[in-house]
Amino acid sequence: MHFKVGVLGATGIVGQKFVQMLEKHPWFKVTALAASEKRVGKKYGEEVNWLVSSDIPKYAVDMEMLPLDPKYFDVDIVFSALPADVAKEVEPEFAKAGIIVASNASAFRMDDDVPLIIPEVNPDHLKLIEVQKKNRGWEGCIVTNPNCTTIMLVISLKPLLELGLKYVKIASMQALSGAGYPGVPSLAIYDNVIPFIENEEKKVETETLKLLGRFDGMQIKMAPISVSASCHRVPVLDGHTEAVWVGFDREISVEEVSKAFESLKPLPLPTSPEKVIIVRKEKDRPQPRLDRDSGNGMSVVVGRIRKSDRNEIKYIVLGHNTVRGAAGASILNAELMVKEGLIKK
Amino acid sequence: MHFKVGVLGATGIVGQKFVQMLEKHPWFKVTALAASEKRVGKKYGEEVNWLVSSDIPKYAVDMEMLPLDPKYFDVDIVFSALPADVAKEVEPEFAKAGIIVASNASAFRMDDDVPLIIPEVNPDHLKLIEVQKKNRGWEGCIVTNPNCTTIMLVISLKPLLELGLKYVKIASMQALSGAGYPGVPSLAIYDNVIPFIENEEKKVETETLKLLGRFDGMQIKMAPISVSASCHRVPVLDGHTEAVWVGFDREISVEEVSKAFESLKPLPLPTSPEKVIIVRKEKDRPQPRLDRDSGNGMSVVVGRIRKSDRNEIKYIVLGHNTVRGAAGASILNAELMVKEGLIKK
Amino acid sequence: MHFKVGVLGATGIVGQKFVQMLEKHPWFKVTALAASEKRVGKKYGEEVNWLVSSDIPKYAVDMEMLPLDPKYFDVDIVFSALPADVAKEVEPEFAKAGIIVASNASAFRMDDDVPLIIPEVNPDHLKLIEVQKKNRGWEGCIVTNPNCTTIMLVISLKPLLELGLKYVKIASMQALSGAGYPGVPSLAIYDNVIPFIENEEKKVETETLKLLGRFDGMQIKMAPISVSASCHRVPVLDGHTEAVWVGFDREISVEEVSKAFESLKPLPLPTSPEKVIIVRKEKDRPQPRLDRDSGNGMSVVVGRIRKSDRNEIKYIVLGHNTVRGAAGASILNAELMVKEGLIKK
Amino acid sequence: MHFKVGVLGATGIVGQKFVQMLEKHPWFKVTALAASEKRVGKKYGEEVNWLVSSDIPKYAVDMEMLPLDPKYFDVDIVFSALPADVAKEVEPEFAKAGIIVASNASAFRMDDDVPLIIPEVNPDHLKLIEVQKKNRGWEGCIVTNPNCTTIMLVISLKPLLELGLKYVKIASMQALSGAGYPGVPSLAIYDNVIPFIENEEKKVETETLKLLGRFDGMQIKMAPISVSASCHRVPVLDGHTEAVWVGFDREISVEEVSKAFESLKPLPLPTSPEKVIIVRKEKDRPQPRLDRDSGNGMSVVVGRIRKSDRNEIKYIVLGHNTVRGAAGASILNAELMVKEGLIKK
Repeated sequence: MHFKVGVLGATGIVGQKFVQMLEKHPWFKVTALAASEKRVGKKYGEEVNWLVSSDIPKYAVDMEMLPLDPKYFDVDIVFSALPADVAKEVEPEFAKAGIIVASNASAFRMDDDVPLIIPEVNPDHLKLIEVQKKNRGWEGCIVTNPNCTTIMLVISLKPLLELGLKYVKIASMQALSGAGYPGVPSLAIYDNVIPFIENEEKKVETETLKLLGRFDGMQIKMAPISVSASCHRVPVLDGHTEAVWVGFDREISVEEVSKAFESLKPLPLPTSPEKVIIVRKEKDRPQPRLDRDSGNGMSVVVGRIRKSDRNEIKYIVLGHNTVRGAAGASILNAELMVKEGLIKK
Repeated sequence: MHFKVGVLGATGIVGQKFVQMLEKHPWFKVTALAASEKRVGKKYGEEVNWLVSSDIPKYAVDMEMLPLDPKYFDVDIVFSALPADVAKEVEPEFAKAGIIVASNASAFRMDDDVPLIIPEVNPDHLKLIEVQKKNRGWEGCIVTNPNCTTIMLVISLKPLLELGLKYVKIASMQALSGAGYPGVPSLAIYDNVIPFIENEEKKVETETLKLLGRFDGMQIKMAPISVSASCHRVPVLDGHTEAVWVGFDREISVEEVSKAFESLKPLPLPTSPEKVIIVRKEKDRPQPRLDRDSGNGMSVVVGRIRKSDRNEIKYIVLGHNTVRGAAGASILNAELMVKEGLIKK
Repeated sequence: MHFKVGVLGATGIVGQKFVQMLEKHPWFKVTALAASEKRVGKKYGEEVNWLVSSDIPKYAVDMEMLPLDPKYFDVDIVFSALPADVAKEVEPEFAKAGIIVASNASAFRMDDDVPLIIPEVNPDHLKLIEVQKKNRGWEGCIVTNPNCTTIMLVISLKPLLELGLKYVKIASMQALSGAGYPGVPSLAIYDNVIPFIENEEKKVETETLKLLGRFDGMQIKMAPISVSASCHRVPVLDGHTEAVWVGFDREISVEEVSKAFESLKPLPLPTSPEKVIIVRKEKDRPQPRLDRDSGNGMSVVVGRIRKSDRNEIKYIVLGHNTVRGAAGASILNAELMVKEGLIKK
Repeated sequence: MHFKVGVLGATGIVGQKFVQMLEKHPWFKVTALAASEKRVGKKYGEEVNWLVSSDIPKYAVDMEMLPLDPKYFDVDIVFSALPADVAKEVEPEFAKAGIIVASNASAFRMDDDVPLIIPEVNPDHLKLIEVQKKNRGWEGCIVTNPNCTTIMLVISLKPLLELGLKYVKIASMQALSGAGYPGVPSLAIYDNVIPFIENEEKKVETETLKLLGRFDGMQIKMAPISVSASCHRVPVLDGHTEAVWVGFDREISVEEVSKAFESLKPLPLPTSPEKVIIVRKEKDRPQPRLDRDSGNGMSVVVGRIRKSDRNEIKYIVLGHNTVRGAAGASILNAELMVKEGLIKK
């Protein structure tokens, strides 16, 4: 079983991660790479500023870049690493053309009829696809994954929901790769922290409510919790670290929370890690350089779970922002859709 | 008017800052430098691994290092940059010998009869000196300043107290110099965040209550607020950045908070900055590399004041951890004592 | 005596350094700031991404940006921080208009009739101005300073020339600010070395020969030495470090070389440092973070002078690339011209 | 065929690399880990500050640390990651006890009867083992690999020898891991270059001559070339970058040199990379972050081969300092000895 897939926005950092992670994928075979107009017709290997490993995967080196237009695509799925404004225009065209769009872009995440999915968190939200197709009259559809900071957070929050979660505060220390390439100038961030990332706090605060919300057959009812985020860029290459406070409607213990984290089950999908959440016991973990590659970058790592108040716990959560938080997130979503029979040959 | 002063623990990073900041001090003249036993009798310039500027101040280069024993000291004040365990033994000896100890060490900060002071925040707590002298039968005394992370935080909290402050959450992104020298190995922190600093969270959570507490004539009544801290080391040389949430007992606006910050008055002391708190309006400030030297490192810089909830505000506060947060803090405390007539010739 | 001066390319990193260094200049007063078209008419303070200190100098905040056209300028001198291709077009227009152009751009450095000057090295090359004016029929003129890497090197080579210098090899470790802003992406250089800087090696190899050459009344005869450079970018904010081998036509000693370095005399100009070359004796100096600000960034610091072979010495030389190596270099050149009577009111 | 092996100095960075690289080794099975006295009897997993990956290999976690005394060892080979002064005392004891010591320590490298080996460069120098055994009356022996900086350099020089190599100049930009753990304090190296590494230049200059020397049946005749090194520490985690000039006794072309690099053949050993030297054609490679893991860290990567003078070429060479430059080097040496029949069960 092989599905033909394309990558939109293939030369950016997330695009590179798609190209890399799909190299040996058991189900998906990359047959199309697309980028902005000036690159069309040129070879991927000559256009990309490859930064995610030593060498571009052989299969991609000589592929000719296509325009962002579905008529040039003979694929079942496209993975989108487009910037939001471009995604806004381009992704609907692909969905109209009957293609499944597994998108990392923020453009449609909060649209009422667009599923925002983390497979281990809210797989049932995929049912929104039917609503979307009906609404928009598309043969294909757009399925999105959340912002990178949101993903790590929400994976850790999911098992806490039924313990009586009421509010969340999160301070992020985000990696450079989250800003793409060229992204953050070295002169801006070296020996520095930038305590601001455009639109990031709002994304974390709203996407979380949708992801933890309930699908009522027609739409998503937002989760009845409050989330407040403070987002910061630090000089780290990959791996977002997040300090989290969670408040409950009752007294809570470190053991309950720790056990809940470890109870989150992985799905039987190719890109799924063995453990969704790894709980580390050391006093000073997780750390991005040491833990970001856990589970091939698809595990989320939690540590320093400690009591903050009677009804409050604090902990650190970390994940690889361009793997679990971007390219891997979209790929896992597509795998879930295949398994659910939503993508057919 | 010149007071003779000594520096205990003069070769460490905070010790170096004392030596540097006291070079041209209008009131204090360094006449004694002390360090651990193996350095005694050697020249400061040969023993110190000077890292805080290009050259050791000329006055200190050839000074011979003294033992940590008051009998070798002919001074009015000693500034202590000793590690807590050494301070525990040594500082009382100096106080007994009639010397004023202005200490950056944590050893005695939380003792009932030891003033923990930020001059702009709780100068009246100096009255504890009388209690201390009576209790301990000392002619001198120990006066302490808080932990570096606490100082920036509490300076920003002070003007919020009377607005009805109830709770505080703070996530810190702390600089390398806060760990001293050799401190954090480069292999441990490069391309990394270490989300743990030994004892730090407890210091922030307890010292804050004492600093904002009320002196009732005999002792300090802890402030009736709750504080929860999550402390993290990031790859930045100097300057602690802190993301803060503050909750009030009533609805609160950004304008009120902003105005309160700017209302905190500087004291007429030599090391005092022109502005105690600088409020920056840019969307991405304060940043450690750009703002840590504001007011010669003695100003605290606040930015990104924004609404988090009806009764809750979030903001970023930043300060130079070895200046306002350590050496400069002790010096300012000593200056306050001089001004208050507590140090006599 | 005040000359009115303008800065071309005022928003870049070198432009910012001009604006900063000229703030309190005793002879020069900035009355015009110019930048690329899209910024014209806007306020400097709103357009610049100020990165070289905490705050933009007050005088510049509200200055309106001018176009790169001399007709808008009422100045005696312009300092040019333009990119080479823009400088190629723009600088001659200013010279034609009777303005002195003190340029940091590479566009005209190697032109036969354009002085390439380091005041302490080859002040007599200013005589080329007459040749230039005659050749080109300009009332003003263009005077250039070398590339940042070349400057540190050549200042250190100048006193070695008469010891019988024959060849030079230099491996540079260059700072991020040398690439301007946004310049090097953090993702490209963090935890990395980039052993390549476009055109840099050729600049070092040719400019050195001109600077150390001899003016014969009509033109510069290149110095009869050979220079080979290998240039590398390292993750350092400011300060270029250079490992140098120098070969002589005779046996040479460390003492001779060291004494020669210290013999280079400063000029009586406002921006001149007390010592042109500082020779450090420590085994591990100079280091960019510790030594780049020596002499307010205008001194060059040499260390680790050691024997490499009978006729060969190796040493390390370091200087601040945006001060001595760029803005400060142009300013010193303009000061020299004032002193030589080449700029009149 | 499995040989039992031990690791001496197992908790340091190079020791950790031994433990990691030997995890799945087809020939060698780690049965003993030794460290300094204070760790003896404790579990490896509790004593090591594991920094080279997310998790300690399972086999090692519960191994009890042994003293540095052969009487506790039942092994065929020990790999030594000891500091030079400890190695000086300890390694001969193991050799006396009949054990093969494959050492990364510098203590014996330059001894007349001790082989200093890079398998692809001078495998015939292993014949010195016979001389050593006779001289010292040992049943075992000590075989060393060079300093990390030397290894990359000499692998690149080997194929140039027969082109008429006469002299070498090398400026290194060395990684933090080369200094071990805790090694370089972050405060010392962040935003900095340290242009000095104790004893390093001498090691490069002398070891190179021995490695490229000729075994005459009794001893090694040093290679008749001159080598001059300038060694510098830069803020990079792993991977030494070296700028090299090579001079020949005749005119030389880039093509000849490039072809020579590619001609160096790998050996049929488990840890040998597919290509010993990878020549990259991009204008800005090799770079440590992108190229250090080439060939699992065992390839050396060369780039920017360019003409410097008629008889002179310059290029950049890079290798992983703790893999090809340390642990991998010793392992490859041991593999060579097994293949040569010098280690028997």
